[in-house]
Amino acid sequence: MSNEAVGDFGLIGLAVMGQNLILNAADHGFTVVAFNRTTSKVDHFLANEAKGKSIVGAHSIQEFVAKLKKPRRMMLLVMAGAPVDSFIEALLPFIEPGDIIIDGGNSHFPDTNRRTQYLASKGIRFVGTGVSGGEEGARYGPSLMPGGHEEAWPYIKDVFQSISAKSDGEACCEWVGDEGAGHYVKMVHNGIEYGDMQLISEAYDIMKRGLGLKDKEIGDVFAKWNKGVLDSFLIEVTRDVLYFNDDDGTPLVEKILDSAGQKGTGKWTAINALDLGMPVTLIGEAVFARCLSSLKAERTRASKLIGYEGRVPHFEGDKEKFLEDLEQALYASKIISYTQGFMLIQEAAKSYSWKLNKPSIALMWRGGCIIRSVFLKDITNAYRNNPELENLLFDDFFKKAIQKAQPGWREVVSKGALWGIPTPAFSTALSFFDGYRTKDLPANILQAQRDYFGAHTFKIKPEFASEKYPEGQNIHVNWTGRGGNVSASTYQA
Amino acid sequence: MSNEAVGDFGLIGLAVMGQNLILNAADHGFTVVAFNRTTSKVDHFLANEAKGKSIVGAHSIQEFVAKLKKPRRMMLLVMAGAPVDSFIEALLPFIEPGDIIIDGGNSHFPDTNRRTQYLASKGIRFVGTGVSGGEEGARYGPSLMPGGHEEAWPYIKDVFQSISAKSDGEACCEWVGDEGAGHYVKMVHNGIEYGDMQLISEAYDIMKRGLGLKDKEIGDVFAKWNKGVLDSFLIEVTRDVLYFNDDDGTPLVEKILDSAGQKGTGKWTAINALDLGMPVTLIGEAVFARCLSSLKAERTRASKLIGYEGRVPHFEGDKEKFLEDLEQALYASKIISYTQGFMLIQEAAKSYSWKLNKPSIALMWRGGCIIRSVFLKDITNAYRNNPELENLLFDDFFKKAIQKAQPGWREVVSKGALWGIPTPAFSTALSFFDGYRTKDLPANILQAQRDYFGAHTFKIKPEFASEKYPEGQNIHVNWTGRGGNVSASTYQA
Repeated sequence: MSNEAVGDFGLIGLAVMGQNLILNAADHGFTVVAFNRTTSKVDHFLANEAKGKSIVGAHSIQEFVAKLKKPRRMMLLVMAGAPVDSFIEALLPFIEPGDIIIDGGNSHFPDTNRRTQYLASKGIRFVGTGVSGGEEGARYGPSLMPGGHEEAWPYIKDVFQSISAKSDGEACCEWVGDEGAGHYVKMVHNGIEYGDMQLISEAYDIMKRGLGLKDKEIGDVFAKWNKGVLDSFLIEVTRDVLYFNDDDGTPLVEKILDSAGQKGTGKWTAINALDLGMPVTLIGEAVFARCLSSLKAERTRASKLIGYEGRVPHFEGDKEKFLEDLEQALYASKIISYTQGFMLIQEAAKSYSWKLNKPSIALMWRGGCIIRSVFLKDITNAYRNNPELENLLFDDFFKKAIQKAQPGWREVVSKGALWGIPTPAFSTALSFFDGYRTKDLPANILQAQRDYFGAHTFKIKPEFASEKYPEGQNIHVNWTGRGGNVSASTYQA
Repeated sequence: MSNEAVGDFGLIGLAVMGQNLILNAADHGFTVVAFNRTTSKVDHFLANEAKGKSIVGAHSIQEFVAKLKKPRRMMLLVMAGAPVDSFIEALLPFIEPGDIIIDGGNSHFPDTNRRTQYLASKGIRFVGTGVSGGEEGARYGPSLMPGGHEEAWPYIKDVFQSISAKSDGEACCEWVGDEGAGHYVKMVHNGIEYGDMQLISEAYDIMKRGLGLKDKEIGDVFAKWNKGVLDSFLIEVTRDVLYFNDDDGTPLVEKILDSAGQKGTGKWTAINALDLGMPVTLIGEAVFARCLSSLKAERTRASKLIGYEGRVPHFEGDKEKFLEDLEQALYASKIISYTQGFMLIQEAAKSYSWKLNKPSIALMWRGGCIIRSVFLKDITNAYRNNPELENLLFDDFFKKAIQKAQPGWREVVSKGALWGIPTPAFSTALSFFDGYRTKDLPANILQAQRDYFGAHTFKIKPEFASEKYPEGQNIHVNWTGRGGNVSASTYQA
């Protein structure tokens, strides 16, 4: 086998995503070099899926590098964490300044920050790219969110925009920003994906336990919703899943263990929101809902010990009307979730000094990825109409949409509470909305409490500022007549 | 000034908490050595608050150390973070093996883990202790939660249990556990404090905007609640705060800016819950509610742009009945919050291999600290009756209490949703409860979706296990007939 540099693009890691990305690139006329640490996977791939395509194999890192044209474009699709660093170190002895290493795994963005800086110091251009779309997306057009060393972009743009999904003729791939910005945006995407999935699960639960619908009927509802404002990949998937019967003719989904993991990007998004102080409550609840789901054994015991003894739902109202309310509840909650996601992205851009292009981000999510939807077209439009839009809810389209959705949304949350069906995501979305649109929240009580017991001080509302209580100053009051006049400085509760 | 070793106990850091702890220890017959980096504070303290008491000052670290009996018991009450390390390094040249350094600030527990190990390597016994109770507590009896190097405990037990609060004759101070366990438990305490304060704020908001009550009337409600199951320091504080009028005769609290910070221990608790995978949703929502409160300017703009155009609350029902419902909603939500807190503590004990004594923790929180309440006596009893209790909700007392509270709780959450008054903490508590007591949650949908789009596999419910789908195995199904048979291994969404 000759080591001639024939490869346009190299990919390391032949699990399902890697294989499919290679096949996708080959379909678009690129010659791809494939490598995997367990080299039998390379041989198997070449002899089967890759047969007859412009795909060549490599059986060592050295051979992999030698078979690539310069500047080399090398993508890693390996487990996030140590394996990425270890492949980078393995590549370094063989590559040259100007070469490009792309990490397409779900790396945590601080790692991507670090790797971009480290490799830049060696003249290597590092890119961390979000890849979304699952195995189908990887094969026929994923959403790609690349960030890192900006010099790399002109060299990888052709491959990336060729293999990516298209939406209304536009590639769902644009340069996101510096350092870990690509992986950051992918992280938020995944957090939003957690949220969308949780919202759908709650809607299913309400239809099943609240309205007493069968899976086929629920599938029909999702099929109908997929023709309206909720038209999206995940609604389509849910429809298919609900229609899918096991060999015995009953829905397979009812046999699936209701226990979901949450160790990844959803958790990172929630933690990042807490770190940046942004109220991304819906993703938070979605992650916690997965935590709760995983306590299956304890829940089973609890269901026997403290099963609900109150009202049991026996729906007797207008089902069609309630299903419309439910559609609006899902839609409004989704608007809130994306609003929160973009609030987080906006804050991250500020905190990390990244230039993040909001219309492009919405566009990248419009096609190819798991959260792709008609809805994201409206978000793209909102940010294209006004790139400085302070908040998605201030856009005319979304303002009207959420006003229209309110009565149904409130009805569903209210009924969920009365029926005893958990709606953590619907509820938190509504509470966020009602809090966000409220000028005077009850946090004044909380600030008074903190000053009372810990001398933590408070500020005065500007409209009540006076000589005694000047605007912007930290004020401490002796609430009880007993405490001293020392305010807390080194001890923060 | 002689450098005779007269001091039983030394304290560094003369902000309000430090001063008050010194006065407290002096009241209990201990001779206390006081030091502060800005030594003018020492002089001022000696000439004023400390005058005539068994308190001696030090103007240098060397003098501070020299004035202490051996083994020296030295407490730091300085800003958490670098100042703690810097004082430790400043002390090290002057102290001896066997001496005890106590950090009484709100340090993050991983720092306390590290410091315990570091100082143990030098023969110094390090203790990280939670201190709660605000300035009043520090002065007249705080809750103390010490952990770290266990050898230190016999030497500090007398001081700690003397100055701590007492509840039914028992000191609200016990050894918590190894390394950072004391600070960990204090962190969870503070998280719960965030939750309690948020719940109270929501109750106030509902009374104010939902029922149209005046502050004095709301104060009366809290005064009444303070004689029942909600009897607690924070309810008492809230009553006082609502009764407190400004010079113009109107309630001061209404003039306080509704913007609260959240950069501390509450956030750490929520992040730790995410890390350990425990659904501590109420604290999470309480932290996020503070984040939202801090977006005051944006909320003010939002209130003009998207004020609620639906139903406006104009309460016409039975107010007394609704206030009883509200009391039950607050009580039930609080039960959930403490349940979640103890679930987290239980998981931490497992994850970090700490022996954590749940009855002692409840006892430590019973008096002195900010969350002190009659309620914590019931928790102490629950864990004393059954130290192996799997979940607080499985205890007879709490099981009955929450069953009784359900109708009112559901009514309040339902009305909050319809009225447009945010109840993030009430709502998440109810959703958690309804999820926790549910054997089959809708996470089956979510697992099916993940397998559909990412070949992430699922498990089968044991009752549906078969030869085709064996129990406990990772199963992948070709949902569409199009996808391959490769399941995801290196790529986790």
